[in-house]
Parts: sequence; C-alpha cells; structure tokens
Amino acid sequence: MTLKPLADRVVIKRLEAEETTKGGIILTAAAKEKPDLSVVVAVGPGGLVDGKEVTMILKPGDKVITSKYMGTEVKIDGEQLTIVKQSDVVAIVED
Amino acid sequence: MTLKPLADRVVIKRLEAEETTKGGIILTAAAKEKPDLSVVVAVGPGGLVDGKEVTMILKPGDKVITSKYMGTEVKIDGEQLTIVKQSDVVAIVED
Amino acid sequence: MTLKPLADRVVIKRLEAEETTKGGIILTAAAKEKPDLSVVVAVGPGGLVDGKEVTMILKPGDKVITSKYMGTEVKIDGEQLTIVKQSDVVAIVED
Amino acid sequence: MTLKPLADRVVIKRLEAEETTKGGIILTAAAKEKPDLSVVVAVGPGGLVDGKEVTMILKPGDKVITSKYMGTEVKIDGEQLTIVKQSDVVAIVED
Amino acid sequence: MTLKPLADRVVIKRLEAEETTKGGIILTAAAKEKPDLSVVVAVGPGGLVDGKEVTMILKPGDKVITSKYMGTEVKIDGEQLTIVKQSDVVAIVED
Amino acid sequence: MTLKPLADRVVIKRLEAEETTKGGIILTAAAKEKPDLSVVVAVGPGGLVDGKEVTMILKPGDKVITSKYMGTEVKIDGEQLTIVKQSDVVAIVED
Amino acid sequence: MTLKPLADRVVIKRLEAEETTKGGIILTAAAKEKPDLSVVVAVGPGGLVDGKEVTMILKPGDKVITSKYMGTEVKIDGEQLTIVKQSDVVAIVED
Repeated sequence: MTLKPLADRVVIKRLEAEETTKGGIILTAAAKEKPDLSVVVAVGPGGLVDGKEVTMILKPGDKVITSKYMGTEVKIDGEQLTIVKQSDVVAIVED
Repeated sequence: MTLKPLADRVVIKRLEAEETTKGGIILTAAAKEKPDLSVVVAVGPGGLVDGKEVTMILKPGDKVITSKYMGTEVKIDGEQLTIVKQSDVVAIVED
Repeated sequence: MTLKPLADRVVIKRLEAEETTKGGIILTAAAKEKPDLSVVVAVGPGGLVDGKEVTMILKPGDKVITSKYMGTEVKIDGEQLTIVKQSDVVAIVED
Repeated sequence: MTLKPLADRVVIKRLEAEETTKGGIILTAAAKEKPDLSVVVAVGPGGLVDGKEVTMILKPGDKVITSKYMGTEVKIDGEQLTIVKQSDVVAIVED
Repeated sequence: MTLKPLADRVVIKRLEAEETTKGGIILTAAAKEKPDLSVVVAVGPGGLVDGKEVTMILKPGDKVITSKYMGTEVKIDGEQLTIVKQSDVVAIVED
Repeated sequence: MTLKPLADRVVIKRLEAEETTKGGIILTAAAKEKPDLSVVVAVGPGGLVDGKEVTMILKPGDKVITSKYMGTEVKIDGEQLTIVKQSDVVAIVED
Repeated sequence: MTLKPLADRVVIKRLEAEETTKGGIILTAAAKEKPDLSVVVAVGPGGLVDGKEVTMILKPGDKVITSKYMGTEVKIDGEQLTIVKQSDVVAIVED
C-alpha cells in the first residue's frame, strides 16, 4: 500500500532526533515553526499548480530540511508519513 | 439522483474508521485540519477555474487523502457525500 | 418585475426543507457555512470578471448545491431570492 | 454641481423604503451587509482598473441591487449620493 | 519648495468645512472612512506601478472626493497637504 | 564601509526635526505611520522584483517623503541609516 | 555535511555582536523585526519561483543585512546556520 502524492507534493518521513544527532545535526525550533530533518519517500509529478509550472527537483532518498511543519500526516502500514509541498522544503542536506 | 460537481470539484465519500483500519491506515489529525481517507465518487470537468486551466487527474474509485476537510456536505438517498476541490486532495492511496 | 444578474452572478431560489426531503436530500450544515439546495432562476452573461473570462454553465431550472450562503437576498413580488456568484455553486443535482 | 465618477465607479442614489415597497420589493439585510435598491445617477468611463480592462454596462436610470454598502457617501445640493464600484452591483431590476 | 509625487500619487489639499458648505456640499463620514472634498495640487507621472500601467487623469485644480483618508500628511511652507494614490480618488466634482 | 541596497531598495538618512523646520516643513504623523523627510544615500539597481520590472527614479541626494517607516535600520560608522523600498517613497521635495 | 538551499534561498551565518562592533556596525531592532549582519554561506540556483524568474545575485562570502529574521535555523556540525529567501536580504555591506 503506497502513497502517490499529487501535483507539487512530496511524501516525507521525519527522522527521529536520535537518528539526527548521529549526523551531528541539532534542530532549533523557531517561533511557531517546526524545522525538521526528513527523508523524501515519494515525489509528485509537478506540472501546472495554481496556473504555474512547477518542476520537481526532489527525489526519493533526499534528506531535506522543511521550513514549516504544515503537511498532512498519515500512518500507512505502521509508518508515520507527512505530505508537504515541494516549496515547503528549504534545503537538501548532503553528506 | 446524482451529483455533478462543477469546475475543479470532486465528490468524495469518507471511508469510516473501521474500514480504514482494515487496510492498516490510521489517520492523525493535525491542528485544525481533518485529514481523511475517502473514495472519489464523481469528478468535475476541470477547465478554466479563476482564470487558470485545471486538468482533472482524479477518477471515480480513487482512494484519496484530503489535506483539509473544507468541503460541502450533502446527504443524497441516505448517503453522506462531500464536495471538495481537486487541489484539496494531497495523495492517492494505492494497494 | 425581474432581476437580471450582472457578470458571473446567478439568481437562485432556495428550496424549502420540506421540498428537499421529498427528494431524499438532507443537508448538513458545516461550521459557518450554510449548504443549500436551490433552483436557478436567472443567469448573468459571464464574460470578463476581474480580468478573467468566465463562461456561464448554469441555466434556469438547474437544481444546485451552493458551498456557502454568501449571496445578496432580495424579495421581489413576495418571492425570496438570492444572488450568488457561479463559483459559489459546487454541484448540480440531477434526478 | 455634478459628480463625475472615476474608472469603474458609479454614482447611485438609494431609494427609500417607502418607495421600494410600492414596487413590491422588500429588502432583507444579511449579516454585516446592507443590500439596497438604488438608481444609477452617473457612470465612470471604465477602462484599465488595477491593470484589468473594465467595460461599464450600467447606465444612468438603471435600478440596481448592490451586494454591500461599501461606497463613499456625499451630499451634493441637498441630495445624498453614494459612489460604488460597478462590481459591487449584483443585479439590475427591470419592470 | 514643492512636492513632486511619485508614480500614481497625487498631492491634494483638503478644503475646509466652511469652504465646502458654500458650494452646498456636506460630507458624511462612513464607518472608519473620512470622505473628503479636496483640490488637486500636483500629479505624479503615472506609468508602471506594481507592474501595471497607470494613466493619470487628474490634473491640478480638480476638485475631488477621496474614498478614504489614507494618505501621507505633510506641511510645507505652512500649508497642510496630503499625498494619496489616484485610485483613492472616487470622483471629480464639477460646477 | 558602504551599504549597497538590493533590487528596488534605497538607503535613506532621516533628517532631524531641527533640520526640517529650517525649510518650513513640519511633519504630521498619521495613525500607525511615521511620515518622514529623508535624504537618499544609495539606490538599488531595480530590475525584476517579484516578477515585475522596476525602474529606479530616485538618486542620491534626493529629499524624499516616505509613506511609512517600515524599513530596516542599521548604524554604519556612527551614521543611522534606513533601507526602504522605492515604492515606500511617496514624493520628492524640491526647493 | 553541507546544506544545498533550494530555489531562491540562501544559507547565511549570523555574525555575532562582538564581531559586528569591530566593523563599527551597531544594529537596531525595529518592532517585531530582527535586522542582522550575516555572511552568505551557500546560494540556491534561483530559477522559477512561484511562477516568477529569480536570478541569484548573492554569492558565498557576501556580508548582508536581512530585513527580517524569518528563516529556518539548523545546526550542522556545531555551526548555527539560517536559511532565508534572497528577497529577505535588503543590502550588501562592502568595506
């Protein structure tokens, strides 16, 4: 059972704090925002979104920082996932 | 007696919690949002919506996750239905 | 004495609850919205509305569901009518 | 002394309740809105308004329903007038 | 010492109540708005404003009604002036 | 050490009240706004700003009135400066 | 481990107060804003952002003033970084 995000959306899985500290990353929450290290699980097709062409540049496996935690949460087969717009992703983290 | 949604709207039927847990899906409600597993019942024609071309990609029978429960509810022949915009649907769930 | 709606507006007449239950339709009001079964009485010419081309697809006699009850009410010759924008109509009900 | 409305504005004169009841029209005020029967006194030239072409379809003498009473009021030679945008007019009333 | 308004702005001088009553004009203030009879003192060049072409139609000496008193006030050589956008002017008053 | 403003921004230096009264200018603060006489110190290159072409018409040395005091303040080498958008400047003051 | 900002975003490192005072710069915080001297660490590719072409003009090493402190904070390998949009940068500081 899989999630296929629509339009400019991506499915991400938030990495737990214990996982992130291994890589030396500590996230600081700004007021009313929940920045987060996540891994991309699935990517929508992009295309015309609200009349504007959106090209998807994220791909499954990318580790990303999201600016705000505004997505839709869903648990599939015991795995907690979040669906956000690509524009809510502010940076890719590379090793 | 049937509902024909206009423009970029789709008619969906929310699946009950007991149905969704069979498939292993448990939905977590974020603040002020009601994510939901639903099945698409009818799809509008798309076309120009607020001056922007919208192509409908959903079709009847699709199982979908909606980002927010902002639709118009109506009961027809004893069946509770909801009318939302396609852009309120964030992902399709495939088996 | 008749009402000629301007631009993308339509004149509708709300059907009373007793009428709607005959057809098996029961309307559920969402928070702060008043969904409603109405019949279209008159349709504006469409055209450029706020710089965007609007084509009218509704016609007199259509039974419609409106997403919100945001129109302008007026009583003409004893008949209570409401003027809404076509985009406030979410679906047509067919027998 | 006359008022020449600019752009997409029209000058209207609100008809008094006693006048409107003669014609069989009773106006119902929705929450926070003041629907009104008025007669058009003067019409602006239309043209580009906020970058969008507006064609004036109203003409002096038209009896109109306005969706909201948001205009600018002014008293000229003892006559109370209101200046609104054409898009605040929802319908023309014809005998 | 003179004021040269930029873009789509005009410099106006509010006419005092005693002056306006001579002409038979009495201004009624709507809630939170201060309609006003003023005379145009200087007119900006127009042109592209926020990406939209604006043509100036006002000229010095025009008597105008402004929809809201949202301008910037400044006193130059003892004279109280106000700078507003042309789109805040709703009508020209002609004798 | 100098400030080079980006895009449609200009660096201005607010003139003190004692300086402004010499020229006969007294500034009146409207509600929640701080109109101000300032002198332009540096001007950004203009160009595409939020997808719209902006041409800079201000130049260093211009005395200007700003509609609102919404800029970013910074002190460089003991001099207090403010960075605003050109569109926040409503008029140029000429002697 | 490095951060690659997406679209029109830049990664900046805020310079501490003790560093900034060496250069003679003292920053004054306006209401609800936190102006700041920072150094650019990484720059996104620009391109189409919300349907509008954005060209990146900042480059790593630039000392910048940001209008508001609205970015996403993240600590990588012990270094506190912030991710902002290029349009949140109001000026470059040159020696």
